[in-house]
Amino acid sequence: MHILLVNPNTTASMTALIEDAAQSVAGLATLVSARTSRMGPVSIEGYYDEAFAVPGMLLEIAEGERAGADAAIIACFDDTGLDAARAMASIPVLGICEAAVATAALIAQRFSIVTTLERSVMPVKGLVHRYGMAERATVRAADIPVLSLDDPSSEALTKLRMEIERALRDDQAEAIVLGCAGMADLARQLQDEYGVPVVDGVSAAVKLAECLVTLGLRTSKRGGYAAPLTKPYLGMMAPFAPVSNK
Amino acid sequence: MHILLVNPNTTASMTALIEDAAQSVAGLATLVSARTSRMGPVSIEGYYDEAFAVPGMLLEIAEGERAGADAAIIACFDDTGLDAARAMASIPVLGICEAAVATAALIAQRFSIVTTLERSVMPVKGLVHRYGMAERATVRAADIPVLSLDDPSSEALTKLRMEIERALRDDQAEAIVLGCAGMADLARQLQDEYGVPVVDGVSAAVKLAECLVTLGLRTSKRGGYAAPLTKPYLGMMAPFAPVSNK
Amino acid sequence: MHILLVNPNTTASMTALIEDAAQSVAGLATLVSARTSRMGPVSIEGYYDEAFAVPGMLLEIAEGERAGADAAIIACFDDTGLDAARAMASIPVLGICEAAVATAALIAQRFSIVTTLERSVMPVKGLVHRYGMAERATVRAADIPVLSLDDPSSEALTKLRMEIERALRDDQAEAIVLGCAGMADLARQLQDEYGVPVVDGVSAAVKLAECLVTLGLRTSKRGGYAAPLTKPYLGMMAPFAPVSNK
Amino acid sequence: MHILLVNPNTTASMTALIEDAAQSVAGLATLVSARTSRMGPVSIEGYYDEAFAVPGMLLEIAEGERAGADAAIIACFDDTGLDAARAMASIPVLGICEAAVATAALIAQRFSIVTTLERSVMPVKGLVHRYGMAERATVRAADIPVLSLDDPSSEALTKLRMEIERALRDDQAEAIVLGCAGMADLARQLQDEYGVPVVDGVSAAVKLAECLVTLGLRTSKRGGYAAPLTKPYLGMMAPFAPVSNK
Amino acid sequence: MHILLVNPNTTASMTALIEDAAQSVAGLATLVSARTSRMGPVSIEGYYDEAFAVPGMLLEIAEGERAGADAAIIACFDDTGLDAARAMASIPVLGICEAAVATAALIAQRFSIVTTLERSVMPVKGLVHRYGMAERATVRAADIPVLSLDDPSSEALTKLRMEIERALRDDQAEAIVLGCAGMADLARQLQDEYGVPVVDGVSAAVKLAECLVTLGLRTSKRGGYAAPLTKPYLGMMAPFAPVSNK
Amino acid sequence: MHILLVNPNTTASMTALIEDAAQSVAGLATLVSARTSRMGPVSIEGYYDEAFAVPGMLLEIAEGERAGADAAIIACFDDTGLDAARAMASIPVLGICEAAVATAALIAQRFSIVTTLERSVMPVKGLVHRYGMAERATVRAADIPVLSLDDPSSEALTKLRMEIERALRDDQAEAIVLGCAGMADLARQLQDEYGVPVVDGVSAAVKLAECLVTLGLRTSKRGGYAAPLTKPYLGMMAPFAPVSNK
Repeated sequence: MHILLVNPNTTASMTALIEDAAQSVAGLATLVSARTSRMGPVSIEGYYDEAFAVPGMLLEIAEGERAGADAAIIACFDDTGLDAARAMASIPVLGICEAAVATAALIAQRFSIVTTLERSVMPVKGLVHRYGMAERATVRAADIPVLSLDDPSSEALTKLRMEIERALRDDQAEAIVLGCAGMADLARQLQDEYGVPVVDGVSAAVKLAECLVTLGLRTSKRGGYAAPLTKPYLGMMAPFAPVSNK
Repeated sequence: MHILLVNPNTTASMTALIEDAAQSVAGLATLVSARTSRMGPVSIEGYYDEAFAVPGMLLEIAEGERAGADAAIIACFDDTGLDAARAMASIPVLGICEAAVATAALIAQRFSIVTTLERSVMPVKGLVHRYGMAERATVRAADIPVLSLDDPSSEALTKLRMEIERALRDDQAEAIVLGCAGMADLARQLQDEYGVPVVDGVSAAVKLAECLVTLGLRTSKRGGYAAPLTKPYLGMMAPFAPVSNK
Repeated sequence: MHILLVNPNTTASMTALIEDAAQSVAGLATLVSARTSRMGPVSIEGYYDEAFAVPGMLLEIAEGERAGADAAIIACFDDTGLDAARAMASIPVLGICEAAVATAALIAQRFSIVTTLERSVMPVKGLVHRYGMAERATVRAADIPVLSLDDPSSEALTKLRMEIERALRDDQAEAIVLGCAGMADLARQLQDEYGVPVVDGVSAAVKLAECLVTLGLRTSKRGGYAAPLTKPYLGMMAPFAPVSNK
Repeated sequence: MHILLVNPNTTASMTALIEDAAQSVAGLATLVSARTSRMGPVSIEGYYDEAFAVPGMLLEIAEGERAGADAAIIACFDDTGLDAARAMASIPVLGICEAAVATAALIAQRFSIVTTLERSVMPVKGLVHRYGMAERATVRAADIPVLSLDDPSSEALTKLRMEIERALRDDQAEAIVLGCAGMADLARQLQDEYGVPVVDGVSAAVKLAECLVTLGLRTSKRGGYAAPLTKPYLGMMAPFAPVSNK
Repeated sequence: MHILLVNPNTTASMTALIEDAAQSVAGLATLVSARTSRMGPVSIEGYYDEAFAVPGMLLEIAEGERAGADAAIIACFDDTGLDAARAMASIPVLGICEAAVATAALIAQRFSIVTTLERSVMPVKGLVHRYGMAERATVRAADIPVLSLDDPSSEALTKLRMEIERALRDDQAEAIVLGCAGMADLARQLQDEYGVPVVDGVSAAVKLAECLVTLGLRTSKRGGYAAPLTKPYLGMMAPFAPVSNK
Repeated sequence: MHILLVNPNTTASMTALIEDAAQSVAGLATLVSARTSRMGPVSIEGYYDEAFAVPGMLLEIAEGERAGADAAIIACFDDTGLDAARAMASIPVLGICEAAVATAALIAQRFSIVTTLERSVMPVKGLVHRYGMAERATVRAADIPVLSLDDPSSEALTKLRMEIERALRDDQAEAIVLGCAGMADLARQLQDEYGVPVVDGVSAAVKLAECLVTLGLRTSKRGGYAAPLTKPYLGMMAPFAPVSNK
């Protein structure tokens, strides 16, 4: 089984971190391959960055599917371009917010998501609502720029801990969801520290992708995820012609 | 007052149709200028087309704002890229689904939205939910490709009428919302035919844009619509650096 | 275009204040005429006052429609009698809570409404829910009697500012909605002070009324807003026979 | 125990019918007294009639409370003026839609409400939503004018039966709620005919009123039901000065 | 009229307390008989205890119905086994959380439920949601083990008062619901102390049971409450064969 | 990794069928062991059967955990006793309705659940609501007794197909969820026949259980799933003393 992991931002060091997290949980028969988007912002912080990350992310998924991937994961907590990817691809596609939230719901009735910047709170809340967890999940920001997670001299980890502590104290959170792909390496350590389940979306998505592939389940093509229609694309977008046009 | 109307698909004839609808309702002191996106699909039918239409649409809004626009309208019923545009621009930005739904809610308790293809039903339902109208609006597709609306030899208008009739009979619809920018010229005629209010989002958005400008209201920059952060963009996206970077 | 503005309480000085706010935003081709209800309470503070304000308000709208108004606005934040007015009139009718909330939703994802007295919080919450904004809006009371807004020696403005500050700090409000017609003159000043959008329902309703009239949209008469049936009315209510009886 | 039953329309024959239904279920120690409103419409069919029925209804409740009533019932399925009555009175007040819906919820998971005219469907749906039953109740109209229920030569009962049969067949209704005070005498007969629980709001309200009085529970005066503030009322409304002015 | 009150835990002293509360509000023509479950936990604190309390509770209801009861009440605030009891019995069955919440909704727009232990908060929230009151009710725990309510030397009453005071201050609660059968004797006293309505579910359920019996309403057998199908039960459960097998 | 599969009904042939489905998808390193409940009904059809199945099911999970299981699955589509099992066990526990619904949500926006008998529709709807999928899932019954699924001479499969066809035609279902553990062997075949994803909860639960175990996630013990308190259990329930009593 071949699972494709796409980092929709253009920072390769973050891809490496994510890939490690994915590898550490993948099954014996699973090959994880990671790709970094080749165009777009170096980090995704809010709706604007998201918009410019989508075409590059779709390109990687299209190439990955042609290269034989059985499932794809979009490794950004905004689930950037997930609907477009599901329509484009014939293999199943997962977002890491979706995977984290679906997983947390199996082990806790109420949980809190700790994301990076305040500007990401509303996008994540929108996702939570859409995934049916609006009444169970609280969304918080730790005031951490995405790329600072990589920088040991930053106070990122300190701020993250403080926000987790607020969630446990004020939200009656039973579990914590880490709200950024760049936190994927921290889940086990924080779980041990706080004694509550801590969910990372990257590793959760790998296991859910294995689930879908093993069960033989692919995105339904009835409804909103029907394959894109063939049509002209003007300007620089031309290379991204739909991969499937029935 | 200068209102910018952006057609996020790349079909100029549709821009002309939309611009006419906008001009016909604009106030005496309002200048409407229309722009056609210069890159992306010729029509937007589903999530995939939407994803590729966003960067081109944002470029037009950024240029339009620099050219002095006081408000911008995204003239596609999927409200393609609305959140990104609100974050990027300092002028207010409106989607035509949002405008149509907000307007219909002022004159009817229940209404039906008739859009083009089945694949657009779920995206529009998602918007309707987000705009707080899930319990009041039904979404239907008339099975009309977007560009066929322009073609008098197609059966587009016949199919649209049939779907309106189903909505009036089966949904207890009190009003009809036309679910595609390409239907903007049909509202008055259909309203006369069926004797119920028929709402077109393009003209509704023009009036709501005038409302916001006159009231001195701009998108709040607290929260999810904070101005994008300055950061490197790799590859062909480079030209679209954020216009505002506080 | 002739827009009728009805103050459903019987205090003429408040009508003057409201009319000024309306005039200041009306379009070049718009005539605003204001009427003060001739029977009922001097201010509307809670459900009981509302009930007694409705018949007088409906009388003014009926007379205003006969005098040629193209749209009517009920200038009380409880949207007092809005459903009855929509059923009675053939012209469109707007409430100022409805108008403010619909407008705020175009420029902010989360906003707070600051109304007068605690007893008005639940009525306004009921409206917010009905308008589909229950998840986006917080309702607060500043503990200001309605008529004190008119009295420069009162602490009304101080209390209002304190409550706005609480909303910005505790609700993550991105915009403020002023929750009383009597605050209509304060929006611009408070917007400048706090640097966030501040929405007044009276001026918002004027612009939305212009929107509906220009678009040729009237209240649908299918469903709950069907014209009243002709029937005997006993006692003092006799003069208010339905204006339309198809 | 003294329970006041107010018919908010001005048709005395309907009051008699309602009073009979109430008496037939009242406890041994309960005195039911019925009053007919002395001003307003002869029947309440839609929002407009409702608006004019409220002041007369409030007058009867105020007088009834002064005459020693321990609880009051508003015997119209629109729960006309219920909030205002709760604010005005210090005794508990019940609406018959509220009572019927609360009672039906104790014996069925899904139920259908059959009301009179199509124009009443949306007002009743609004109530059902507010009472927390939007997902459990369907609202239907049998196309019966209210006063025709009194007329044996009308087809009212035939139409009511047809609509009940549709509800049982199409809504998966487990119980039927009769959606008009004028149907109060039909519940037992229809329950026997159809073999499913049939709930009448008038008799349900009598029992719930007994419940509140026996338990010593009165409307909370914290929040939206705080006693009205003393203030001048202009014009013909003067007699209805608030009965309680703390 | 004969109302059966079942204490689903196995502590007889609590049954006595509950029976007293029930007797004190029962009508002149009502006989209340109380039964204590003969198997299961001595108190019900959370989902696990609930699960083991259900078979014993169902046995008592089955025996009570055979002994002539007209309605049954499950006197535990978790409404333990309510659905199973409704399916099994042909007489109506009420839960005390359900009864308390339905009653509180008649006298307050917002209320707070104060239950015993933190572990019961989510089960009670689940019930509140199901009864349609999620937006109106807050659930709090006073950190009181159920059986300590019986023990005058415990601090149970002090802790309960503190939590009620928090609810009044922080939740804008207009009324208090006591969230444990073991608090049934405290409602009147706390209502007098705090000057807001205080609702006890045991006494509320008695009055609602009288309501259903007088109105001739029984659980609908269409849908989820259809009588159990006859089938073999293995092991020790054999005695509880369904009482009705149509 | 050792996954325990409990059939909460007492029919061993169904356990065998379920175990086969589970084995066929289990990972290379996963041992699946199945247990049949030793007390309770031979099939679970509605709330009553569910109630009596819970104690036996809990006993099997407790024994399975002591025998070294890393996760447990309750193989009945009513997710019978899931909350109690989560509170009791320290290993993670999954319901098959929960697993099926969470999985279907990853590959379709709208799906239909086809369960056995009409009496199970409302219990399953309750679960769907709780899992946040009320707006995305329709629940249907095929009128098939549970044990008839085992009987090749029954029309069970014909009826199931007819209901799937109705779901595809009338619900705009994009995927089908099989709503009974006894259908676990049919998913692949029906998926091939209908060309839409068909989800079986047993196999989905196995993969989700592997996901939780690999990620090191266990049920949070903060909140409603706190370990049961030690206390006396009267009567035949004595053997089921809580396994964990901190």
